[in-house]
Amino acid sequence: MVRRCSVDPAVVSVDLGGTNLRTAILTKNGDIFDRSKQATNVSEGHRKIIRRLIDDIERQRKNAEARVLKIAAVGVGAPGVIHADSGVVVKSPNFPDWNELPLKQELENGVGLPAFIENDANAAAFGEYWRGAGKGVRSLIFITLGTGVGGGIVLDGKIWHGADGMAGEIGHMTILPDGRACGCGNRGCLEMYASSRGIVMSYLEAHASAGTSGSSVGVTSESIYNAARKGERSAVAVMEQMGRSLGIGIANLINIFNPEMVVIGGGVRDAWPLFIEAARSEIRQRAFAFPAERTKLVPSDLGDDAGLAGTAAVAFEQLH
Amino acid sequence: MVRRCSVDPAVVSVDLGGTNLRTAILTKNGDIFDRSKQATNVSEGHRKIIRRLIDDIERQRKNAEARVLKIAAVGVGAPGVIHADSGVVVKSPNFPDWNELPLKQELENGVGLPAFIENDANAAAFGEYWRGAGKGVRSLIFITLGTGVGGGIVLDGKIWHGADGMAGEIGHMTILPDGRACGCGNRGCLEMYASSRGIVMSYLEAHASAGTSGSSVGVTSESIYNAARKGERSAVAVMEQMGRSLGIGIANLINIFNPEMVVIGGGVRDAWPLFIEAARSEIRQRAFAFPAERTKLVPSDLGDDAGLAGTAAVAFEQLH
Repeated sequence: MVRRCSVDPAVVSVDLGGTNLRTAILTKNGDIFDRSKQATNVSEGHRKIIRRLIDDIERQRKNAEARVLKIAAVGVGAPGVIHADSGVVVKSPNFPDWNELPLKQELENGVGLPAFIENDANAAAFGEYWRGAGKGVRSLIFITLGTGVGGGIVLDGKIWHGADGMAGEIGHMTILPDGRACGCGNRGCLEMYASSRGIVMSYLEAHASAGTSGSSVGVTSESIYNAARKGERSAVAVMEQMGRSLGIGIANLINIFNPEMVVIGGGVRDAWPLFIEAARSEIRQRAFAFPAERTKLVPSDLGDDAGLAGTAAVAFEQLH
Repeated sequence: MVRRCSVDPAVVSVDLGGTNLRTAILTKNGDIFDRSKQATNVSEGHRKIIRRLIDDIERQRKNAEARVLKIAAVGVGAPGVIHADSGVVVKSPNFPDWNELPLKQELENGVGLPAFIENDANAAAFGEYWRGAGKGVRSLIFITLGTGVGGGIVLDGKIWHGADGMAGEIGHMTILPDGRACGCGNRGCLEMYASSRGIVMSYLEAHASAGTSGSSVGVTSESIYNAARKGERSAVAVMEQMGRSLGIGIANLINIFNPEMVVIGGGVRDAWPLFIEAARSEIRQRAFAFPAERTKLVPSDLGDDAGLAGTAAVAFEQLH
């Protein structure tokens, strides 16, 4: 009987990215066990991917039993437009053949457990809120700076999905009306300046306009961070420009939301010292003083695990 | 006994503006009776204004009795930073001597009824949600275009106040990073282009840069609307420019919130046909197609009564 009572509920969390399919077991305390990673292989199509995912969930279920944990649900974070209530992937840029895919239902049929589906950036925001940088706050805006710029909005302890699950497109805020053309059809999106792609563009533009000789082959955001860390002037300037662009976006969010916290995640977060002062300076100039000062601007605490934590938190919450 | 049962609850709503102090009786159905208006006379200081306000509430209470209505609460909308939970006016640009003023407590002591205090733009947003353009939707963004540009955010049927009651400063979103200097300290705020003041500035700038002779004395936003309605080219262009600026701001809000509706209020709303097509065109170019198409962009339905309705709705909701 004592043994039985000590079986804690846990969930299998899934981070279903365009490149990797990651799963892990999470407890209510936020402890993470048995992280597992495999290539997503998008080209295989959704049937095969879901089959592999179900197999991996079953495997994690056995892992959980060995740890005296009982899996009560599955939480999935996936890119794209997700209808969280119904668990349908409406569309996903990384999975061209996922249209109106009833992922919740497919997983529930496959594993016989409740499944909860969430947009990946929303999940990461909720993960930071639950067990990461945002522990103890009630409202935060999460901005993920990667190849693109994504966002998740947590207000009063809840993810704000918007009317159709499409809220949080912070990367497509216009910060320069006649700026760079973005894939979304707009010009001057934050994403075109604050993503790793935007950083590379800024660097190449600066070198082109300076008429600097030398090859641009092999220029990556990482090589720019490294050059900036070594004090290479144009790289430093590019990272400061990126910080100012990010600062415009964050200042807007502060004036609109008056949030408690803004959390920065994604790969570009690793370059934090290279852009954050420029961002803070821009925020001071642009946002109202009181909300600007009170908003904590912090790097993601959970990093790559934020999404796994967030889908677990969503699942635990829905179970109650 | 029949008589007693037919006494419907009602509230006295107060719109405490920098120019006028308006009160009215509102029922739960949104019916408005006994509108009353007096000059606020800000220079008298808060003691006298609150005294007059209490007298007016008492008078409205008697009016209500004559209508077989029972006043159950008072709702007040006021400009500035309001802490809605405590009912404290933290600061108010129109009332320089109102600092940390416990307005809720002062009114409750004065009239012996529960009082609820709300920021005026939030109140107008909630009024439109309750009985105006937003009837039947759960989320809307309200933008008031007057001398300045204000905003109120209703999400899932609740006003989003932000961490300190300072959310909704939509007018101070940067839409042009190196644009006109704004009183808030920022440059290129939406307010500098989409308010009546911004419209006058654009007109005067256009005439100055065109070297047009003629007096700029007496140019008002209304005179510009009238000229535009008559087809005067520069006035038409100014209103289209204003619409494009507004469209950038609304596109950002759509990408961030994925709202059901955006409601435009304030005096500039009267020039709706002069700017709305330019705004819609900009939104189509800048926001994601699906949320942009589904967001209803409509003029305020309640006009000057939106704030009165909203404070009544706040009061009715808090009473339960």
